[in-house]
Amino acid sequence: MQTLINRSPLPMPSVSSSFLKTPPPSLSLPKPNKTHFSHLPVSLLKTPRRTRVSCSLIDPDGGKLVSLLVEETQRESKKRQALSLPRIGLTRIDLEWVHVLSEGWANPLKGFMRESEFLQTLHFNSLRVENGAVVNMSVPIVLAVDDEQKGRIGESTRVALVDDGGDPVAILSKLSGGLWDSLTLEACIEIYKHNKEERIARTWGTTAPGLPYVEEAITNAGNWLIGGDLEVIEPIKYNDGLDRFRMSPAELREEFTRRNADAVFAFQLRNPVHNGHALLMTDTRRRLLEMGYKNPVLLLHPLGGYTKADDVPLSWRMKQHEKVLEDGVLDPETTVVSIFPSPMHYAGPTEVQWHAKARINAGANFYIVGRDPAGMSHPVEKRDLYDADHGKKVLSMAPGLERLNILPFKVAAYDKTQGKMAFFDPSRSQDFLFISGTKMRALAKSGEDPPDGFMCPGGWKVLVEYYNSLAPTGNGKVATPVPA
Amino acid sequence: MQTLINRSPLPMPSVSSSFLKTPPPSLSLPKPNKTHFSHLPVSLLKTPRRTRVSCSLIDPDGGKLVSLLVEETQRESKKRQALSLPRIGLTRIDLEWVHVLSEGWANPLKGFMRESEFLQTLHFNSLRVENGAVVNMSVPIVLAVDDEQKGRIGESTRVALVDDGGDPVAILSKLSGGLWDSLTLEACIEIYKHNKEERIARTWGTTAPGLPYVEEAITNAGNWLIGGDLEVIEPIKYNDGLDRFRMSPAELREEFTRRNADAVFAFQLRNPVHNGHALLMTDTRRRLLEMGYKNPVLLLHPLGGYTKADDVPLSWRMKQHEKVLEDGVLDPETTVVSIFPSPMHYAGPTEVQWHAKARINAGANFYIVGRDPAGMSHPVEKRDLYDADHGKKVLSMAPGLERLNILPFKVAAYDKTQGKMAFFDPSRSQDFLFISGTKMRALAKSGEDPPDGFMCPGGWKVLVEYYNSLAPTGNGKVATPVPA
Repeated sequence: MQTLINRSPLPMPSVSSSFLKTPPPSLSLPKPNKTHFSHLPVSLLKTPRRTRVSCSLIDPDGGKLVSLLVEETQRESKKRQALSLPRIGLTRIDLEWVHVLSEGWANPLKGFMRESEFLQTLHFNSLRVENGAVVNMSVPIVLAVDDEQKGRIGESTRVALVDDGGDPVAILSKLSGGLWDSLTLEACIEIYKHNKEERIARTWGTTAPGLPYVEEAITNAGNWLIGGDLEVIEPIKYNDGLDRFRMSPAELREEFTRRNADAVFAFQLRNPVHNGHALLMTDTRRRLLEMGYKNPVLLLHPLGGYTKADDVPLSWRMKQHEKVLEDGVLDPETTVVSIFPSPMHYAGPTEVQWHAKARINAGANFYIVGRDPAGMSHPVEKRDLYDADHGKKVLSMAPGLERLNILPFKVAAYDKTQGKMAFFDPSRSQDFLFISGTKMRALAKSGEDPPDGFMCPGGWKVLVEYYNSLAPTGNGKVATPVPA
Repeated sequence: MQTLINRSPLPMPSVSSSFLKTPPPSLSLPKPNKTHFSHLPVSLLKTPRRTRVSCSLIDPDGGKLVSLLVEETQRESKKRQALSLPRIGLTRIDLEWVHVLSEGWANPLKGFMRESEFLQTLHFNSLRVENGAVVNMSVPIVLAVDDEQKGRIGESTRVALVDDGGDPVAILSKLSGGLWDSLTLEACIEIYKHNKEERIARTWGTTAPGLPYVEEAITNAGNWLIGGDLEVIEPIKYNDGLDRFRMSPAELREEFTRRNADAVFAFQLRNPVHNGHALLMTDTRRRLLEMGYKNPVLLLHPLGGYTKADDVPLSWRMKQHEKVLEDGVLDPETTVVSIFPSPMHYAGPTEVQWHAKARINAGANFYIVGRDPAGMSHPVEKRDLYDADHGKKVLSMAPGLERLNILPFKVAAYDKTQGKMAFFDPSRSQDFLFISGTKMRALAKSGEDPPDGFMCPGGWKVLVEYYNSLAPTGNGKVATPVPA
């Protein structure tokens, strides 16, 4: 499992050597309208949807930002159309992918992958687009159908994707064609074999039983994949009180522009934020300022889709992140907290590319990568599934991510002499305490406090509350996670 | 298993649509010295080693053709140096890879892969070279060492690679550095973890037991990989009577230039040649002539390294190929037969890229790809390991192979109405007989003749002889293959 603090006492190479790709800005940006927020935390406010996108941010991957939402005036007619088509029911994870696709996180993908895209993802972790350029795409974004569904689709060139209530969410069709019109004589929905073993082996580098995403979304899925272009009828909403944090790439770009950001550094997380993370983020901003950027903005970007059972659920994490901002550990003026709608693969070096690529589309030109990103324990053997350094190495060499500045995570640990989280100094390693995720969870579960300065008290309290909510039920079983 | 004749009655898309990448030559080439050969088959003659390389052939992958052989004058001193270094014994397959690397088949690799190259191969099937360009590299070319060997190497920056007689074959050292000097602060030999499971999963798309190369070369190999630059002391020889057929990429380029080739089309094979293959190759030449090429030359390029136990051994295949040329089924004037020294992975769509990429280095700008190239049966399940069309599709989209013209294999079958091999015509499918590899082997084993026109009689006789040599021994066991 990925821990909150880097587990190895070996420090990573200094961040500074990686600050090389993007030259510091030589011109100051035009002043945008300064927006005032009336209450804290300002960074948690969702801004109204607008279409203006700054030209000073990094360009979306593959050109223009895709939006697969149908025009508001067309929604009703599309819904009616959908009702006349063969229907495919979406699982929660399928719906999360529809969300991801609809807003352009997977730019320039316009829908679930056709076979040519699927094969390129599996073999090359990248797609060649029409102009010959290469974009990164490391995890398959695919929709499985079973024999019965395939039979029902028959020769239809369009299908309706429906939610668990049977309501139409999207239409999958041929529309404008995929990325590969020139190869696929005719761009159409395409049904092709779902070789699960090969997909799993090439995505995870193992076929061992017990991979969370595989068990949740692949093992029992159909033996066919259906690809095509999506028309999404309405913005995807979860009605869990967190939708206001789910900003689209276009909305984030607008927010960064409004804040006059001249650098955006993204921090992907699926765990509570402790002061070691905060130190790293604050230090990154300091370094960017030193390089000449005037206003680097942090995108604190918790993953909001499927996570495995023993991860802290999104609602509790968001509550914790809110406290961290309230407590002033991170500066709300230079931090945007938003939810990344993707489900989690736990596919290490393969997945970290996806995490980075998606953030380009939201305007991030710096990406912080930790030890063993998207990693976990091997499901069968007693070892980590991935080499802890491979994520960073693979990310730095990944095709299509050349424009992104990769910032390796500096190792922070609890410095007993200072009573706070600090960057690990190997020359006095005896002064440092590494508090693993397992250790942190054990403390929170038992209601014990961590050393002062490990996490802000408000944030820690949320964690303790969460684990209390999991207290064994009367029958001795541990309760399933509850929403915050 | 790959069969000799395409198994499916479904024809492939016409070849013609793929003849688009390279425009026909608009200028005729300068006339080279015409070389006369005094006896048949001219194409089987090995030419003396020279260094002139035509500028009209496709450029080697990644620029200048690598040669890792030490100068003849230096050999003795290098041998003496090698004797003072820690030694690593090479297996037969390791030696085949040294051979491959030494002649530039894996251009621009200069030795066994360091970790950055290994990771790029596993994740991207390609390497980024110093100038930012991308070359294809889909199979890991790595050297495994075990804990004991790693211990013996210690801090040494150079090691000697020795053959099974203990004689030095090469020195692995830091030399000029790998492709990634800028990333690996110091280019040195590098020892890194050999995660076999991940290597196998990402290369084969399965971890099922029974993959021939895995069982032969990975399962029992060491848990470390050692990368670095190679200095190969002498040209690799096998002393099996076939060394004269093992032309290096430089020698092949010279031969094509001498023949005034303005297009070179490569045909990879590891099976006997039948008239269906011959038809395809003859037809390809005809089409290239139609396009305006004046002298397309065929590189008939049997794989000479490790193959699985039930493939026909190289020596017998070479004997069979020789008969095919003698019998006039292929034109010796426009055919060069040479041996490709690589071992076989049986890794389908991943491996076919390697097969194609290596031939670019030998000067081929057209590559013929069949159904299920480098494929085999799933080692555990009752199905082919790879989708028969994926090899062709993946090859057509592979990074670094954009310059190569991919020619999909047209399906040939035995046309009963003509009494010969012909391109399959689905409108009269009842007229065609598909003779699978299994069927062919069964016929040859039982001494039966195939239909007239399936294979030239001389070639068939060689096959029958081979299977006779395998006749059960007295104790009821089948004898192991014998050299021809």
